[in-house]
Amino acid sequence: MTEKIHEFQAEIEKVLKETASPQSPASIYEPFRYLLEGGGKRVRPLLVMMSAAACGGDAFKSTNAAAAVEILHNFTLVHDDIMDQSPLRRGRETVYKKWNDSTAILLGDMMIGFAYRLLNSYQEHKNFGAIMGSFTRGLIEVCEGQAYDVDFRHIENITMSDYLLMIEKKTARLLEMSAEIGAQIANAKDEDCAALKTYARAMGIAFQIQDDLLDVTATGTDFGKVVGQDIVEGKKTYLIVRALEKATEPEDTKLLKEFCAKGGLPEEYIAPMQDIFKRTGVYDDARGEVGRYTQEANDALLQLPDNEGRAMLAYLLEMLAGRKN
Amino acid sequence: MTEKIHEFQAEIEKVLKETASPQSPASIYEPFRYLLEGGGKRVRPLLVMMSAAACGGDAFKSTNAAAAVEILHNFTLVHDDIMDQSPLRRGRETVYKKWNDSTAILLGDMMIGFAYRLLNSYQEHKNFGAIMGSFTRGLIEVCEGQAYDVDFRHIENITMSDYLLMIEKKTARLLEMSAEIGAQIANAKDEDCAALKTYARAMGIAFQIQDDLLDVTATGTDFGKVVGQDIVEGKKTYLIVRALEKATEPEDTKLLKEFCAKGGLPEEYIAPMQDIFKRTGVYDDARGEVGRYTQEANDALLQLPDNEGRAMLAYLLEMLAGRKN
Repeated sequence: MTEKIHEFQAEIEKVLKETASPQSPASIYEPFRYLLEGGGKRVRPLLVMMSAAACGGDAFKSTNAAAAVEILHNFTLVHDDIMDQSPLRRGRETVYKKWNDSTAILLGDMMIGFAYRLLNSYQEHKNFGAIMGSFTRGLIEVCEGQAYDVDFRHIENITMSDYLLMIEKKTARLLEMSAEIGAQIANAKDEDCAALKTYARAMGIAFQIQDDLLDVTATGTDFGKVVGQDIVEGKKTYLIVRALEKATEPEDTKLLKEFCAKGGLPEEYIAPMQDIFKRTGVYDDARGEVGRYTQEANDALLQLPDNEGRAMLAYLLEMLAGRKN
Repeated sequence: MTEKIHEFQAEIEKVLKETASPQSPASIYEPFRYLLEGGGKRVRPLLVMMSAAACGGDAFKSTNAAAAVEILHNFTLVHDDIMDQSPLRRGRETVYKKWNDSTAILLGDMMIGFAYRLLNSYQEHKNFGAIMGSFTRGLIEVCEGQAYDVDFRHIENITMSDYLLMIEKKTARLLEMSAEIGAQIANAKDEDCAALKTYARAMGIAFQIQDDLLDVTATGTDFGKVVGQDIVEGKKTYLIVRALEKATEPEDTKLLKEFCAKGGLPEEYIAPMQDIFKRTGVYDDARGEVGRYTQEANDALLQLPDNEGRAMLAYLLEMLAGRKN
């Protein structure tokens, strides 16, 4: 099975490399190649291909869509990094930092075009309209999610349901869309498509809460980003929202409210914030939620026919839920 | 005929208004409404509808595509204004200036999604794949054009052919695409589609050279932007490129080279630059080119069947070529 996954990955890389191969304008294609060489787990394109396989389709017919989804995901990273002023991603300088804002804005814009161009290769497919519809809905909602994320930094009272709305759009939606498009390309039955979407959505939420957790618990080198960056940037993560619900010590509440009011705290507050998370049991709660959503994803998989595609999806889930960085 | 054009405009405004009507996230939809209320001539969507009519189709069946094209055009303005640091557009504050960079980046991104969502309403049309292909090519090329525009500010020796490549992508391509999509929706014959594209491309080039000219010759209030902004921003316009070819006085050449080397000049140099343009006859050359491309556009129109759609296209051309602001 892992051999098959490597085959999928190789195909994805091939299409990505082709898309980024033109030479002019160099101010776009050079940063594009730099970005794609940065790697990443390629979770979303794998999800497209594995979903196609799980529905009994030929996964290799979904390679262009898989690459389109990966490009869409990377577009969000390039633009989000400007908005978040994040200097590093996967241990390397971000595009706006290595080049400048204009380059990062333009590259992101063009990547949306590249993604649609890849999808256009399915124009003879009977589900072409549906594929386009899913992809476009994904694009709009992922931007809405980022808008909520940015807005929430300036709103003091974020509830758990606000938080869930935000990560559903910002993180879960692209995974759900990836699974859906894989199913559409494989001409899946409606119930298989629905099960895949439930699986991907739950995996997405688990993944995001895990990400929030790792931001403050991972070790710098492994994680490839600055530890505690979310605290400095004022992000309303699961940990913050849950700690606000649970904190009873006046000192803790005061610091949390200060974090909210100021839209983040300087680096020297990372350790005191970590201490609050630990004492209020928020780390454990986060781990509990990751476990619960992982279970939901696994349950959804059991509704699919028992085949190699399904096994790969189970493996992907295990890889993501158990990740340490 | 002008009554029909007003009907077209009303339909376009209706679809644009509907697209911008949702309330949440407010940080996106408020600036989106502000942007659309800023108006503009709606040249591109009119071009879609008039082209459909010129090919014997029902123009009102192309309204969603027309709105999609206008949204795509406005997306480019929102992002370009950040890159160019332009504080005003059509006499009003630009989105990044009135809100901030993040809002403008995100709004632009979502607008691409809104445009594709509108196009998706044609998924039952037999030319749906072709329409999507044209639109995506337009998106990619307009970004390439902007990349050249940004790059050229840092390159000293821009030739006339560099300039033409840039404006062909940045300006002419979207007009050409608008005409093409109108023709595709009307199931036009190949030769009619080709004539429409020639017309729109030539009109686009005439329009851009006219725009370069108006930047330094228009009066502030009418034009709705700061006069001479291109000189301050270091834009390699037709005037600059042509003046570099023609200048013989060492003083003139020195100032032009300084403009190129420094990527623009402070406001007090606007008047001396205007003086160079006048003395070297560059204004006249620009007017000559506008006339030549307008002629090319008119000639292309004569290849189309003589109907109301064609008359409207001739009227549109006249309106754009003869504009004073």
